Amino acid sequence: MARTEINTLGEFGLIDHLTKAIELKNPETKYGVGDDCAVLSYPADKDVLVTTDLLMEGVHFDLTYITLKHLGYKSAIVNLSDIYAMGGMPKQITVSLALSKRFCVEDMEDFYEGLRIACEQHHVDIVGGDTTSSMTGLAISITAIGEVDKGKAIYRNGAKETDIVCVSGNLGAAYMGFQLLEREKQVYYKQIEEIERKRAAATDPATKAQLEQQLAQVAQPDFSGKEYLIERQMRPEARRDIILKLREHGIQPTAMMDISDGLSSELMHICKQSKVGCRIYEDRIPIDYQTAVMSEEMNMNLSTAALNGGEDYELLFTVPIADHEKIEQMEDVKEIGYITKPELGQMLITRDGNEFALKAQGWNPLES
Amino acid sequence: MARTEINTLGEFGLIDHLTKAIELKNPETKYGVGDDCAVLSYPADKDVLVTTDLLMEGVHFDLTYITLKHLGYKSAIVNLSDIYAMGGMPKQITVSLALSKRFCVEDMEDFYEGLRIACEQHHVDIVGGDTTSSMTGLAISITAIGEVDKGKAIYRNGAKETDIVCVSGNLGAAYMGFQLLEREKQVYYKQIEEIERKRAAATDPATKAQLEQQLAQVAQPDFSGKEYLIERQMRPEARRDIILKLREHGIQPTAMMDISDGLSSELMHICKQSKVGCRIYEDRIPIDYQTAVMSEEMNMNLSTAALNGGEDYELLFTVPIADHEKIEQMEDVKEIGYITKPELGQMLITRDGNEFALKAQGWNPLES
Repeated sequence: MARTEINTLGEFGLIDHLTKAIELKNPETKYGVGDDCAVLSYPADKDVLVTTDLLMEGVHFDLTYITLKHLGYKSAIVNLSDIYAMGGMPKQITVSLALSKRFCVEDMEDFYEGLRIACEQHHVDIVGGDTTSSMTGLAISITAIGEVDKGKAIYRNGAKETDIVCVSGNLGAAYMGFQLLEREKQVYYKQIEEIERKRAAATDPATKAQLEQQLAQVAQPDFSGKEYLIERQMRPEARRDIILKLREHGIQPTAMMDISDGLSSELMHICKQSKVGCRIYEDRIPIDYQTAVMSEEMNMNLSTAALNGGEDYELLFTVPIADHEKIEQMEDVKEIGYITKPELGQMLITRDGNEFALKAQGWNPLES
Repeated sequence: MARTEINTLGEFGLIDHLTKAIELKNPETKYGVGDDCAVLSYPADKDVLVTTDLLMEGVHFDLTYITLKHLGYKSAIVNLSDIYAMGGMPKQITVSLALSKRFCVEDMEDFYEGLRIACEQHHVDIVGGDTTSSMTGLAISITAIGEVDKGKAIYRNGAKETDIVCVSGNLGAAYMGFQLLEREKQVYYKQIEEIERKRAAATDPATKAQLEQQLAQVAQPDFSGKEYLIERQMRPEARRDIILKLREHGIQPTAMMDISDGLSSELMHICKQSKVGCRIYEDRIPIDYQTAVMSEEMNMNLSTAALNGGEDYELLFTVPIADHEKIEQMEDVKEIGYITKPELGQMLITRDGNEFALKAQGWNPLES
C-alpha cells in the first residue's frame, strides 16, 4: 500500500489536501476552512449549541480493533449525538488531529473518509481545525456546533415528578461488542505468541519455515452471527431520526441526554440535576437478541451490560405523562419507568419485583 | 506541596471542582458547563466566529520552561487572538484536557487559574469541555467562539493593490525569549549533569555530601534585563485593544490575521489568498530594544528573528491607502509596506536597498 509521509506535505499542505474536496452545504456556514476562524450565520430565532470531545489513543480507542475510517466516523458521531441530546440539529464540526510519525497521509485520508460519511448523513459541514504532531499516538479533538429553536434546548434538569422515562433503540450492544473484540484480540495474540515461541525454539529450517507459514495463516476472528454487536461498537448512530420524530409528534421532552457512559450513570445525572428520583423497570429496558445471546455466552449479567455498558449513543429522555399515547405510537422508543419525588431515590425494579438503588458504574476515563 | 490524585475526584468530580467557581458574564451565554452542550444566544446582527487549537506536550510546550498557570493563560490567548484576527470579539471558550497520571488536582487548579485570568481580561466565559486521561503527557484542546457584525468578518483574502500593510506591537521578542529559555535550560542541565557525574564517581561520604549540597544550589537562570522577552514568550497578549482602536478610528481592514507562525509566513498567506504581491521594508519592521540586544548577544540575524520567529500574536493587516493618516494616529501600529500586483511577488526591501523574495520559514509542527 502507498505510504506518503506527512512531512512531505507539511501542516498547511495536509489540511489543504484533506479539506479541498469539502463542499459547504448549510446556509448557516458562511466560511469554512482556511482563515483564522470559521464564520457562521445563524438565524435570529435559533440558539447555538456547542459541544466538544477529546479522544486519545490508548484511552478512548484501540487501533488494533478499529480502522481509521471507522474512527473518523465514530469521532464525529459522538459529538453530533450531544447536539441531538439537546433537541438540536448539528450544522458544523471542527476537527483537530495530533499525529505521531506512525501515521501517513493515506491514514488521514481514511480518517477523513469516515468523517465525511458521518457529516453527509447528518448534513454537517467541516469548517475548520488544526493538524499537528504528537510525540506518541493519535489525539482527536472535535467540536460540533448546531442550532435549536430559541429557548427550546432540552437540558438535563427539567424532569418532573410523574414524567415518563424513555429510551430509544436498545442498550448494552456496544458494550458486548467491545467485550467480543477484546476477547478475540486476546485469542488472536495468544495464538501468535505460541507459534512465535515455537519458532524461536525450533532449530531445523524446515520446522521454522512451517511455523512461519502457520503464523501467516492465523485466522482473523470470525464474527458471524454477531455482526450487530461489532457494528454497534464500531459504527454507532446518532439519533437524528428520534429528534425529527419527536418534533413530528409534537413532543417536547422535559429532560434529555445521550447514553454514552451507561443508562444508570445518565439517569443519575438527570435525577441529580432535576432534583427528582426515578423508578426504572428492569424488564422494560430494551435489549437486542444478539446482546442477550452474547452475555449468556460470556457468562455476564445482561442487565448489568444494559445498565452500565456505555457507547450506545441512544437518547434517554423524560416526557410529561400526558404524552404517553404519543410515545406509544413512536417506533423504536420505549418507556422504561417514571420520575418520582427526590426522597424516593433512583430505584431499579428487577424482574422478580425486588428494588435496588441504581449505581453509576459508567466508564470513567480518569479512574484506573 | 499538597498533591491530590485526580482519580480521587473522577472525571465529573474534577470538572465540577474546576468549574464551580465560574460565573457566566456574557448575555450571549445562556448555559455553560454541565449539560451535553453549551447553549449560546447571539443577536441577529452578528455572525458567529469559531476557532480551535490542539496543543500537545513536547510539541507545543515544554513544562520545564512554562508553569501550568502560564500555560493555561497562553492556551486561551492563542485562540482568542484568532477571533480578534477576524475583527471579532471572543465571548466563550471550551477547554478539553487529557492528563497523564503525572498531573494532580492542584496542577489543574493552576492551569485553570491561568485560563481564568485570560478569560477575565478578555470578557470570555468558559462554557464547557472535557477532561480525560492520556497515556503520556498533556493534551489541551481549546475552542473559542466569538461574534462580529454581520458581513464584517475580516478575511485573509481581501487585500488590494496599493493597500498599506500594518503590524501591531513589535516582532521577534517571543522567539528570542524562546531562544533564551532554551539556552538557559541547556546550561542548567549541563551543570546538574556534571555534578551528578562527580557525585557518582566520588567514594568518600564527605565529598558526596558536598556535591549533593552543590546540586541543591545550582542557580536558577537569571533573566534580569531580559524580562520582556520571557514575558512575550510565556505570557503573550491577544490584541483586543487594537481591534477596539480600529473601530474607534472607523478603519475596516481589508485583510487581517494574527502572527503566530512568523511575519513572512503570514504575509504569504494574505498574498496567496488575496492574489496580490507585497513590498515590505526591513527598516520599518517594529523590533523591541531587548530583542535587538539579545539577537546581538546570541549572534543571530535580527531580521530573521522578526520575520520568521512566531508566537508574537500581533496583528498583521492591510488597509486602503486612504486610511494612512488614521493609521498614523494609532499608537502601537506601524506601516511596514504595501500591497502590489501579484506578478511583482512578495518582496523584502533590506536596509541597504536590496530586494529579496520573502520566504516562509515559519514553524511547522509537522516537519522534522
